[in-house]
Amino acid sequence: MAAALCCGLLDYKTEKFALTRNRRVGLLHRLLQLAVLGYLLGWVLVVRRGYQDTDAAPHVSVITKMKGVSVTWSKDASSRLWDAVDYASPPQGENVLFLVTNFIATAKQAQGTCPESPSVLDGMCTEDVDCPVGNPVVHGNGIKTGKCVMFNATHSTCEIYGWCPVENNTLPRKPLLAEAENFTLFIKNTVNFTKFNFSKGNALQTNDSTYFKSCTYDPFFNPSCPVFRIGDMVEAAGETFQDLALLGGSISIRIEWNCDLDQPTAWCQPQYSFILVDRRYNFRTASYYWDSQRRPYRSLMKLYGIRFDISVHGQAGKFGIIPAAVSFGTGIAFFGAVSAKYALFL
Amino acid sequence: MAAALCCGLLDYKTEKFALTRNRRVGLLHRLLQLAVLGYLLGWVLVVRRGYQDTDAAPHVSVITKMKGVSVTWSKDASSRLWDAVDYASPPQGENVLFLVTNFIATAKQAQGTCPESPSVLDGMCTEDVDCPVGNPVVHGNGIKTGKCVMFNATHSTCEIYGWCPVENNTLPRKPLLAEAENFTLFIKNTVNFTKFNFSKGNALQTNDSTYFKSCTYDPFFNPSCPVFRIGDMVEAAGETFQDLALLGGSISIRIEWNCDLDQPTAWCQPQYSFILVDRRYNFRTASYYWDSQRRPYRSLMKLYGIRFDISVHGQAGKFGIIPAAVSFGTGIAFFGAVSAKYALFL
Amino acid sequence: MAAALCCGLLDYKTEKFALTRNRRVGLLHRLLQLAVLGYLLGWVLVVRRGYQDTDAAPHVSVITKMKGVSVTWSKDASSRLWDAVDYASPPQGENVLFLVTNFIATAKQAQGTCPESPSVLDGMCTEDVDCPVGNPVVHGNGIKTGKCVMFNATHSTCEIYGWCPVENNTLPRKPLLAEAENFTLFIKNTVNFTKFNFSKGNALQTNDSTYFKSCTYDPFFNPSCPVFRIGDMVEAAGETFQDLALLGGSISIRIEWNCDLDQPTAWCQPQYSFILVDRRYNFRTASYYWDSQRRPYRSLMKLYGIRFDISVHGQAGKFGIIPAAVSFGTGIAFFGAVSAKYALFL
Repeated sequence: MAAALCCGLLDYKTEKFALTRNRRVGLLHRLLQLAVLGYLLGWVLVVRRGYQDTDAAPHVSVITKMKGVSVTWSKDASSRLWDAVDYASPPQGENVLFLVTNFIATAKQAQGTCPESPSVLDGMCTEDVDCPVGNPVVHGNGIKTGKCVMFNATHSTCEIYGWCPVENNTLPRKPLLAEAENFTLFIKNTVNFTKFNFSKGNALQTNDSTYFKSCTYDPFFNPSCPVFRIGDMVEAAGETFQDLALLGGSISIRIEWNCDLDQPTAWCQPQYSFILVDRRYNFRTASYYWDSQRRPYRSLMKLYGIRFDISVHGQAGKFGIIPAAVSFGTGIAFFGAVSAKYALFL
Repeated sequence: MAAALCCGLLDYKTEKFALTRNRRVGLLHRLLQLAVLGYLLGWVLVVRRGYQDTDAAPHVSVITKMKGVSVTWSKDASSRLWDAVDYASPPQGENVLFLVTNFIATAKQAQGTCPESPSVLDGMCTEDVDCPVGNPVVHGNGIKTGKCVMFNATHSTCEIYGWCPVENNTLPRKPLLAEAENFTLFIKNTVNFTKFNFSKGNALQTNDSTYFKSCTYDPFFNPSCPVFRIGDMVEAAGETFQDLALLGGSISIRIEWNCDLDQPTAWCQPQYSFILVDRRYNFRTASYYWDSQRRPYRSLMKLYGIRFDISVHGQAGKFGIIPAAVSFGTGIAFFGAVSAKYALFL
Repeated sequence: MAAALCCGLLDYKTEKFALTRNRRVGLLHRLLQLAVLGYLLGWVLVVRRGYQDTDAAPHVSVITKMKGVSVTWSKDASSRLWDAVDYASPPQGENVLFLVTNFIATAKQAQGTCPESPSVLDGMCTEDVDCPVGNPVVHGNGIKTGKCVMFNATHSTCEIYGWCPVENNTLPRKPLLAEAENFTLFIKNTVNFTKFNFSKGNALQTNDSTYFKSCTYDPFFNPSCPVFRIGDMVEAAGETFQDLALLGGSISIRIEWNCDLDQPTAWCQPQYSFILVDRRYNFRTASYYWDSQRRPYRSLMKLYGIRFDISVHGQAGKFGIIPAAVSFGTGIAFFGAVSAKYALFL
């Protein structure tokens, strides 16, 4: 009986101790269960929408079209009008497109010999020995003929065999196509989430054929009009058009689709953002022709301008029985693990 | 002893009660274990192939080439032959390509003044005040000169300075290149899953050099011949070629690679699908030339046609020891959680 | 007391048995816990960096520019100089670009009738019946006129209406632009991980404007100079330039960004790899012109060369409180599951 008593006492003491311990552990336990429940409801169901199937690789189609006209004046005061066919390239309207804002034209180049441009390091010389015959000028315009000749009063450069005369690299001080600011870019973008057989375009579905001819995109007042003013896009990228137009630049147009297909499809709208990638951009292009003696000539153009690079990313989610079961099951399992573990410690 | 007996009885009763409860809970328990096992085997191992490493971002290369010839007849009954160099652009064979099916040609445009087209809203006028000097015509072809002139018997439009004469926007009623239906498009597509150092192309590996010159793709009889008839593709997209050819259109060619590299590589084959993106598509392009007095001219072409946009998605999986361990371990853990939890409730 | 004793003995025996079993099970238990801990630390935290938010879909921008000059000699010993404007296309510098290394020129093609090339299967004939009027030659250059004519001493082919004369398909035995090996390709690549508002370019940030004009990429000595010698790239792809230049080829330039943004940003550097996709590559292009009688002509060029296809993949990770909590919580749950499960078995 004494043993029983003592044991009874012991039991009582242990129990009392266990109770206090229980209370503390129990609190921790409840907190943990709450955390898991919070994770399950907050993270899995609300933030991650774990009950949804997702498709993060939509098939994307982008078609673009620029509009607007501008007049440029050359030194001899002759004017030239530029329309979209002249200043936009490539003509097909792909997702990378280019708007000429400034240029250096070198008309009537023919194959022959002439002095290299003094702007090319490897073309500078003081005597003929500096120009070994047959060597190409590194980053230059032709093959050295072995002679060192006067380019102008101050510079001597190697004579080259190439397209002559070489390009004159003095750029107009102000952009020639300054009015390009008011040109517009129409972007037709369609995304297709094949997993859900769901397609949507960024243009308003309308029967009014003149709508896209008169509207301009505005993030607040006109978000469904995919006609963007060039100047607005440059400003949204944090630049002023006149600065960028002088030496060219590269702007990334990003279209983000983040669609919850359990909601009305009207809520599935793209977000546009405009980011400056680079402050300089130019390339050269030429058109070739032949004179009456079939001698080849070319008109070289060094084009400065704004390159637009449209990239589309998208993600769509829709309720699916399997992901819902998995998410819920996983949550239950965590919940169970937490419950079981701490119960055992008691 | 009485206490012991009573307790023995109590024990017995509790045990009996516990047994029935056990049976019921046990059933639930088994069902849950079965669900977890089903999830583990069905979802993780079979559907998701959880034992595999995956690579969902292959490096993709697409090269295309169009073939075929067609004759067009102009109003003055002169014929013109079109081959791939004439109707396909860009010539390099990229993943976006264009086939001309109809066009409006405006030959010999020069810079000068002429009346704006009456199809441009902002170009309409009734008196000179409607055409403020120096303003560009919105969505039009030039800069207003301040005069309102007769375009034809019924319309008056602003005179503009621009490329003149302006484009005549009457499109032939039937597609000029109606025979383009029989042209073929060769698509060479290679995917490379760098993670597994695995490359595969969509073209049959063959030594017969004439194979690709004589075969045509058919989903059932000839799925390894990547030469697609244009008409077949348009039909697969749910359109008739003659309708689409008139005003142009945009078709998305989707190539899906879904490869289980634990299977023979011959099973790793692409799936093609053809989807109509848009019912209208056109763009303008020009070729420039100079007359004997060095005055610039251009030949403007408004090209209607079918734009093909090839997009490739791919995913490959291969057994990997780490994902296998993780998947299996996770499954075991769920299994354990379910077992532990319900065991505790007893 | 006897009962107590027996029970005591039983207890003792059971305990002893349980102890040995415990030891064995305990060992397994510890091993499992160790495995879970290893998984948690090794896989989740170190390999997968589970405590990080990730962005695997950066917005990517690629701008390219080729440099170099080369001279070609035609059969009549006349020389021609090629610079980047002549041999690189498209001129804009996109992520797919082409370098001419060999070509077949067919000057002054006009619309008319001439014999089909004997290299086209469907154009071969022995009598007029083989050439039904109005049928296009399959994979050929024109429409059959109904006559079978002599092409040369050994071959008879159908007469066609098309661009005449047809292309002469004898390719120079050695690449005409063999010096293209020393040309350079400048690749300007910027990635932007929008989730972390982090941008980085592959070019060294330097104020020395001549740096990119004089450096060449080398994986060990000069990894920050994005100017690639064509010959080096072809070699890195496992080919010799002279072989590839003859019939053209396609090379994939892959840029991989794998950035841990918890580390200094200087460690976030791209990895380049060069892979041969194809051993043949060519396309045709034409320039159109008119003679004094306004008859259209074209100069057809079949261009062989190297196509470079730049693809950029990227992934960035950065510490995030939610993924860290989730990874840690999941690990704890697994740990708990393992602990709980085996404890129950005892």
